[in-house]
Amino acid sequence: MPPFPTYTRPDFTRPDLAAAPPARTEAAPRDGVLPAGFHATSNHPEYVHLGGGRWLLAAESRMDAVFILEGNTLRTVEPRLVMEGERVVVGRTENGEEGIFVHTTGFDAPTETAEDKFAFRSRGTRETPFSRSYDELYDILRHDRENGHIVWVLGPAVAFDRDSRDAMARIIGAGYCHALLAGNALATHDLEAALFHTGLGQDIYTQALLPRGHYNHLDVINEVLRHGSMEQAIAGLGIRDGIIRACLERRVPVVLAGSIRDDGPLPGVITDSRQAQDAMRIHARRATTVIALATQLHAIAVGNMTPGYRVLDDGTVRPVHFYIVDMSEFIADKLANRGSAQARAILTNVQDFMVNLWHNLRG
Amino acid sequence: MPPFPTYTRPDFTRPDLAAAPPARTEAAPRDGVLPAGFHATSNHPEYVHLGGGRWLLAAESRMDAVFILEGNTLRTVEPRLVMEGERVVVGRTENGEEGIFVHTTGFDAPTETAEDKFAFRSRGTRETPFSRSYDELYDILRHDRENGHIVWVLGPAVAFDRDSRDAMARIIGAGYCHALLAGNALATHDLEAALFHTGLGQDIYTQALLPRGHYNHLDVINEVLRHGSMEQAIAGLGIRDGIIRACLERRVPVVLAGSIRDDGPLPGVITDSRQAQDAMRIHARRATTVIALATQLHAIAVGNMTPGYRVLDDGTVRPVHFYIVDMSEFIADKLANRGSAQARAILTNVQDFMVNLWHNLRG
Amino acid sequence: MPPFPTYTRPDFTRPDLAAAPPARTEAAPRDGVLPAGFHATSNHPEYVHLGGGRWLLAAESRMDAVFILEGNTLRTVEPRLVMEGERVVVGRTENGEEGIFVHTTGFDAPTETAEDKFAFRSRGTRETPFSRSYDELYDILRHDRENGHIVWVLGPAVAFDRDSRDAMARIIGAGYCHALLAGNALATHDLEAALFHTGLGQDIYTQALLPRGHYNHLDVINEVLRHGSMEQAIAGLGIRDGIIRACLERRVPVVLAGSIRDDGPLPGVITDSRQAQDAMRIHARRATTVIALATQLHAIAVGNMTPGYRVLDDGTVRPVHFYIVDMSEFIADKLANRGSAQARAILTNVQDFMVNLWHNLRG
Amino acid sequence: MPPFPTYTRPDFTRPDLAAAPPARTEAAPRDGVLPAGFHATSNHPEYVHLGGGRWLLAAESRMDAVFILEGNTLRTVEPRLVMEGERVVVGRTENGEEGIFVHTTGFDAPTETAEDKFAFRSRGTRETPFSRSYDELYDILRHDRENGHIVWVLGPAVAFDRDSRDAMARIIGAGYCHALLAGNALATHDLEAALFHTGLGQDIYTQALLPRGHYNHLDVINEVLRHGSMEQAIAGLGIRDGIIRACLERRVPVVLAGSIRDDGPLPGVITDSRQAQDAMRIHARRATTVIALATQLHAIAVGNMTPGYRVLDDGTVRPVHFYIVDMSEFIADKLANRGSAQARAILTNVQDFMVNLWHNLRG
Repeated sequence: MPPFPTYTRPDFTRPDLAAAPPARTEAAPRDGVLPAGFHATSNHPEYVHLGGGRWLLAAESRMDAVFILEGNTLRTVEPRLVMEGERVVVGRTENGEEGIFVHTTGFDAPTETAEDKFAFRSRGTRETPFSRSYDELYDILRHDRENGHIVWVLGPAVAFDRDSRDAMARIIGAGYCHALLAGNALATHDLEAALFHTGLGQDIYTQALLPRGHYNHLDVINEVLRHGSMEQAIAGLGIRDGIIRACLERRVPVVLAGSIRDDGPLPGVITDSRQAQDAMRIHARRATTVIALATQLHAIAVGNMTPGYRVLDDGTVRPVHFYIVDMSEFIADKLANRGSAQARAILTNVQDFMVNLWHNLRG
Repeated sequence: MPPFPTYTRPDFTRPDLAAAPPARTEAAPRDGVLPAGFHATSNHPEYVHLGGGRWLLAAESRMDAVFILEGNTLRTVEPRLVMEGERVVVGRTENGEEGIFVHTTGFDAPTETAEDKFAFRSRGTRETPFSRSYDELYDILRHDRENGHIVWVLGPAVAFDRDSRDAMARIIGAGYCHALLAGNALATHDLEAALFHTGLGQDIYTQALLPRGHYNHLDVINEVLRHGSMEQAIAGLGIRDGIIRACLERRVPVVLAGSIRDDGPLPGVITDSRQAQDAMRIHARRATTVIALATQLHAIAVGNMTPGYRVLDDGTVRPVHFYIVDMSEFIADKLANRGSAQARAILTNVQDFMVNLWHNLRG
Repeated sequence: MPPFPTYTRPDFTRPDLAAAPPARTEAAPRDGVLPAGFHATSNHPEYVHLGGGRWLLAAESRMDAVFILEGNTLRTVEPRLVMEGERVVVGRTENGEEGIFVHTTGFDAPTETAEDKFAFRSRGTRETPFSRSYDELYDILRHDRENGHIVWVLGPAVAFDRDSRDAMARIIGAGYCHALLAGNALATHDLEAALFHTGLGQDIYTQALLPRGHYNHLDVINEVLRHGSMEQAIAGLGIRDGIIRACLERRVPVVLAGSIRDDGPLPGVITDSRQAQDAMRIHARRATTVIALATQLHAIAVGNMTPGYRVLDDGTVRPVHFYIVDMSEFIADKLANRGSAQARAILTNVQDFMVNLWHNLRG
Repeated sequence: MPPFPTYTRPDFTRPDLAAAPPARTEAAPRDGVLPAGFHATSNHPEYVHLGGGRWLLAAESRMDAVFILEGNTLRTVEPRLVMEGERVVVGRTENGEEGIFVHTTGFDAPTETAEDKFAFRSRGTRETPFSRSYDELYDILRHDRENGHIVWVLGPAVAFDRDSRDAMARIIGAGYCHALLAGNALATHDLEAALFHTGLGQDIYTQALLPRGHYNHLDVINEVLRHGSMEQAIAGLGIRDGIIRACLERRVPVVLAGSIRDDGPLPGVITDSRQAQDAMRIHARRATTVIALATQLHAIAVGNMTPGYRVLDDGTVRPVHFYIVDMSEFIADKLANRGSAQARAILTNVQDFMVNLWHNLRG
């Protein structure tokens, strides 16, 4: 049995929903500009009424997008990608009265009461017990290795420590990662560790700051640029370990999004933020589980574009799991406050998280 | 008297420096690729020896750039902007022995002893006394309003509170801001506050979450896109307050750098991270004081590109002040650990910081 | 009009409450031991049914205490102070069905709906707007200076900075403090500042660490012990400023509770935690407003013993305001999670908080 | 070979030390009052000169105590325990010139240079690599299980999670804990977990908040009080798991220090802070390794009283290891700033720390 709840579709024969009008649309007045009253999507399953009791479930949804409804085809599109004249669904109610129904209870257990729900709503802190969150995560990862799409979103800290970097590489090697989303720094520090055993000049095992170690990451970037690509550099420099190399070996796609903080950047980093969003969104669409580690920027970016559910090829609707692993209650709260309802925070150091995780996954 | 120390030039008649060889250069092998052994700049004043006792001080320096030396002209250039064949200074010592001298004590008081320096090196925490830091900051801002270039780097939190948003707008109006560097979110939330009196749907005065308030920032973005630009939107929508409007009114340049977290983005946001770095660098070069508020991403980006000193038009060398105002010791430490030696952290809430600051500046 | 809502008593003619049985009691089996099924108090107004429609409101309540009901007298007593044979109210329901009614809506505005309440329930973070919280606080303090009992709970950080220490002393001098609860460290650092202008050896204005400055706090403690009391030391050493001296001058009671972290402690510090709780409770009972600054230990201790309301001499029931000012979401959450429902967190540095507050109060 | 450096005694034949005068003493003027100019101890090895080249090493030292020198006997005594007339060593220099020598380099490797030392001085953050710190800790614990005295200082968080509570109990059971120092809350929550599988009413595995779960910790306290002691309660209530029970079973001494935050407290909690300090100090004196988890109050208290070294029965001098495991850079910095030089911070969640630790210790 899969380690997640079964989805219950809404009962569209319910009187209020049976009486619902079809959803209305308005044409986009210009490329990237929405008609007034546009409906913005949540990350819950949402249905649009075509009329006559025919409701369409949005596939590949995400937060803060809009619906383009043309004929019987419903697409979820980021506002900036809407084209002039496309028919945008309008209406800001969620209960069907405008032909839009946001289904917030589809994954609830049948017997679950309001009180049960309340019981689990306490917000996590560093003192929250995480034992069960871990056990659930192990189950989900074991299931999704073969039957899902596991997306990792990594901040650079995971490469700053020998043991966590090794653990991440092994997790990739064992098939638990179907896509890696990160920034220039993760890749740079991972390659610095491979070439110099340091991260920003500090030994990743002993913590010693090496003399002139601050040159290491600049040298790494220069070496990769000299080779022309990360692939060629890894081959040419004889790199035999690390996170990026594990991805190349397993042919796991890596999307590196640029930022204004970057040195370099490395070849392959996507420096335009909209292009980077598009490249990340390909994996967010397919994700069944996302694990975001020690990165506020990337975790929020991916959280924004990851739906709360996925429609599988056979039509099954399943939840998408989203884990944020970070040291800071503030960051976990920030994600929760933005409406990433399914986000589950584990407040800890990513090094320990990675080491623990690999220990449990390898069995 | 200006509120900062006088600069003392190195004594190049000192035997070790008098004996220094001229700096060596190597040609860049390809656009964006450096020769082996390249010298990376710090944010201290650095001198390059031309030979015969002639030393050039790098103007417009920054961290982790390289020197291009052609004839008697010394330029500080980011590695990615180096062109094939340009002569890059090589050498990784800092004491003159390869013709490169990093002058770390130029701003020390003449009588200052090693013990004095030690005395001030204790790292700040939330319990550090900040009274004098504030008094110094007021003096510097009063001086630099007429005689310097004050660059503000703003995270969105400054727009989430009525009083801090007002204070920032007044500070701009009073001439204490020569350039504003921020992201899409700051501008969006500032305009949302102008139109709806909310930030992400929460009233910026009462804290009340408004029904359907989460639409506000999407509506703001859509309105601005509909108008075509922030300028046109501010005029067309009759916006009369806020940070962005204050900048437009005072003709203070605003650089908005995009990120993968952005909704929209607003027109005018620079979505390519390298172009954004170039646009930000124009102001970082000229900065005499930088104040970075509640933004890890932008603070580190600007910290990386801001020199520790500036050579004024009359040849005077003065320090560049860099303040980081944030709630988190971690972020302040991170900046300090990256070598932003001149960075001074004030650990507090930006709302209180802004209100306090305006209260003191307006006298 | 007082700056807080009017209290609405429960409607005991409501059918369910009209049908309520009298509350039951059981004898305490031994000093400090409760009968099974004891009722534990919350910090909401609670009523106990004597029978015949006569309900008693608990005066001087607090969280996690019990009710002793003898005849028509209802006392709220900490479990450890219950004496063998006393009649303890039993019953764990809150809706009247066992004769106990917890009135959670007494301070709600009459027109307030469930949705309104939800709207204000978002948890504060460092990005929450605090403008209105400040305005309300100023109003409350102005009101309670004459018409209430303002209790300050201070961590040592308030004495580490010249300006915040001065602000606190002035606030006391201006009558805005009716009792001061703190630990040994606050008093020690305040007196160290008076004698040496340092806090733990660091200058409270310049941040300079003074040579052998670590002796300062030990010398202060020794001097006070030599004089025999803080009063005598302040007179004998000619201390003319600071928080403790302001309290002595205004005859504001100071309760200093000891802890295992203490050096010394100073004479007057209550080293037994139960005696300290008893001494603190005297002021918590009378409090109409509590402001806890930068102290996790004392804030939680006082939060536990402060009721959410007070019955004034004329029978009026008013809310007790409880402000926690701290840098850490974790601590604010911790207090909120413990049921201190009325606690309002302001996430900022106490130095700025104090300076801002005094600036506005002296207005 | 033991997993720590060999101690090198000072060379008292060095001219400056050979010329040192004997240390001076002054009589304490009154119980608990020190003579002016008293010498305060650090947590480095300190030697007192008796004259004639005879130097005594202080055994059982601690920070901020004084030396009582009587004849050839040197005792390290907390100021409050000094008795009238006792001879207190005076002098505030550390280099021998007043007959007091603080030996800060005794545990340095012979070949270690100033630059090496600098290299390791970078302050830890959540991004610091901890792999080697863990490996060292495992080695130390394996060594000290038989050949040392391991003191654990526990905050309540370790009992809030099923897996970390189990891990701690097993670590005690396996002999890796010679004394447990904690507060009332740790014991209360551990027993609540044993009786109800909750911590403050929240399931320690599932995170579910149980209805009326807030009564659990009050009921636990009442039950233990009813039984008269923790020992009797554990027997009488049939408690079979947990941290306190593991200590009783292995006859590991438990010191529970009271605080003003306590409910109850449980019988056995020492409510007077000076008596609690005395009871804790017995174990701090003997400690060879201290591990302080998720408790600011107790970690600082124990840090203050734990020497940086221990003189073993055979005269060998060895370092005392002091680990602080916490989520907050602020707390780690605070301990380091107080002079607990040997303190090593591991910034992580204690739950993961415990689970990782047990996994590695059990091999």
